Amino acid sequence: MKISLEKTAHILKNADNIAILIHHFPDGDTIGCGYSLCRALQNQGKNVRVECADKVGDQYGYITENFKFDQFKPDFVVAVDVAAKSLLGDLKEKYPKIDLCIDHHSTNEFYAENTYVDSKSAAACEIVYELCKMLDGIDLVQASALYTGISTDTGCFKFSNTTAKTHRIAADLMDMGVDYAEINRIMFDTKSKARMQVEKDALNSIKFLCDNKVAIMTITKESRLSSGAKDSELEGITGLPRTIEGVILGITIRERDDTNICKISARSNPPVSASEFCARFGGGGHERAAGCEIKEPKENALKILSESAEKMFKELGLN
Amino acid sequence: MKISLEKTAHILKNADNIAILIHHFPDGDTIGCGYSLCRALQNQGKNVRVECADKVGDQYGYITENFKFDQFKPDFVVAVDVAAKSLLGDLKEKYPKIDLCIDHHSTNEFYAENTYVDSKSAAACEIVYELCKMLDGIDLVQASALYTGISTDTGCFKFSNTTAKTHRIAADLMDMGVDYAEINRIMFDTKSKARMQVEKDALNSIKFLCDNKVAIMTITKESRLSSGAKDSELEGITGLPRTIEGVILGITIRERDDTNICKISARSNPPVSASEFCARFGGGGHERAAGCEIKEPKENALKILSESAEKMFKELGLN
Repeated sequence: MKISLEKTAHILKNADNIAILIHHFPDGDTIGCGYSLCRALQNQGKNVRVECADKVGDQYGYITENFKFDQFKPDFVVAVDVAAKSLLGDLKEKYPKIDLCIDHHSTNEFYAENTYVDSKSAAACEIVYELCKMLDGIDLVQASALYTGISTDTGCFKFSNTTAKTHRIAADLMDMGVDYAEINRIMFDTKSKARMQVEKDALNSIKFLCDNKVAIMTITKESRLSSGAKDSELEGITGLPRTIEGVILGITIRERDDTNICKISARSNPPVSASEFCARFGGGGHERAAGCEIKEPKENALKILSESAEKMFKELGLN
Repeated sequence: MKISLEKTAHILKNADNIAILIHHFPDGDTIGCGYSLCRALQNQGKNVRVECADKVGDQYGYITENFKFDQFKPDFVVAVDVAAKSLLGDLKEKYPKIDLCIDHHSTNEFYAENTYVDSKSAAACEIVYELCKMLDGIDLVQASALYTGISTDTGCFKFSNTTAKTHRIAADLMDMGVDYAEINRIMFDTKSKARMQVEKDALNSIKFLCDNKVAIMTITKESRLSSGAKDSELEGITGLPRTIEGVILGITIRERDDTNICKISARSNPPVSASEFCARFGGGGHERAAGCEIKEPKENALKILSESAEKMFKELGLN
């Protein structure tokens, strides 16, 4: 059932022995939500813990170090920033019944008994910020967690999901003393050595076509393995080719462990449609960010993609 | 004379035939200030133009395309975001007398007849935002220019100069309809092909020392010249080595046109002091960002810096 934020706060006030579930491959927003809500409920004297199917990254230590969780059998289960039950990973089986879900995804599948969704919120932390205010006020630990979620889900206020409200909440959290500069340094200005290695290899591979309007970058299996980069460390790397001035179609070829298969990501600027380009290979996605798969070794994939991009640009009169 | 913001608005209301001067090598903040103030005064029926010693970059076209300037002999000259007269470049001789200066640098040299400085403002555009509200309200052209200045001077709200007030002003400007996502894409997610080339070469050059706590990167003359990268395109590149996880001293060697001289930039995280490191070579700067010069070819500079970093890390017990 869809419920209001007031009702959500009311339900939480009456619950105890609470497990808060965050999504697998946890990011700043789900972590920020989970830990700030946990703190709010703990501050009311409740028994609460946060659970995740995967390990929370060390970079979030400034949040997690403030928490110690007791073992207990939960009477109430709440999922935060989790749009579908499958995103709980291994916790899906452990918790077949979810009592409450708090989320900002328009794709929420309403798997919980009660659900509060606000898809206008750039981050689920914007919702939990309002909720914490209703529950018990916000301390510095919560404020830091909430700022982290808001900052990471908006690319530090850069992306189009950012709203005026996002900024006003950030301002309120900063007034509470959040060390935002250090949080942003950790979140945005720190890359692993392995990521740097893959980026270097990928930059070396870039091919330009169509008068430099198309850039195709390859991430090889060899580069991934020799650097030791985990998938989580390569987040966002496919955005690189389109960041080059003048490029309106940026393509990334990612060689799979099975080197006869390549995962393709396309990013575009108007008038080029990334989803239309990927549809030519049975893929799809959004207008400016799409993907597909090509069951060929990387050299062939490069040739096929190059020819297809040249053809598309000719059709569009861009060549 | 130091004056209040109210007095600043009063003086501008009584002026006409106004030349607004912005600093040379113009950045988003000085451009945002100049053009938004120009618009505010034009909206009051005044004769106004913006002048700069250097060409305003094409990426700011969405601001400048809204302006056409007539030739006229100015009766009143105002400098915005210009801390010292020398920063006017060639305009310094053309305008020996500056009537008014509006700035946010604590280092302002008070060269104008009247000066309003607020060094707590992250961007001079925060001041001009308040000023425009006093003058004639803010239209979308002004709002876009002001957002640009605020966003660029704070690294998109990432840096420690950002305040809660900065966010609240950004929120107000977004309420006016600013296309912030597109502005941020142009300002932060667009790199020239030449910059990308130099970055690639520089990443290829990185040497790690002291258990990966020190990273030394070299930008060669050859890379600069063959890529065709202008100095303005290489802004911020010296921050790269320190962004690598675990690196607490990131050093950049920049080979000069005279290849017997290298410009050195150091960036550090605690407990390492970049200024203390650079002081060993007669340089200096801030605790976390400093510089010096080494009058040796790049290979020798690399050797000298490596030995010095290892010695410093041993002294600090970090090795």
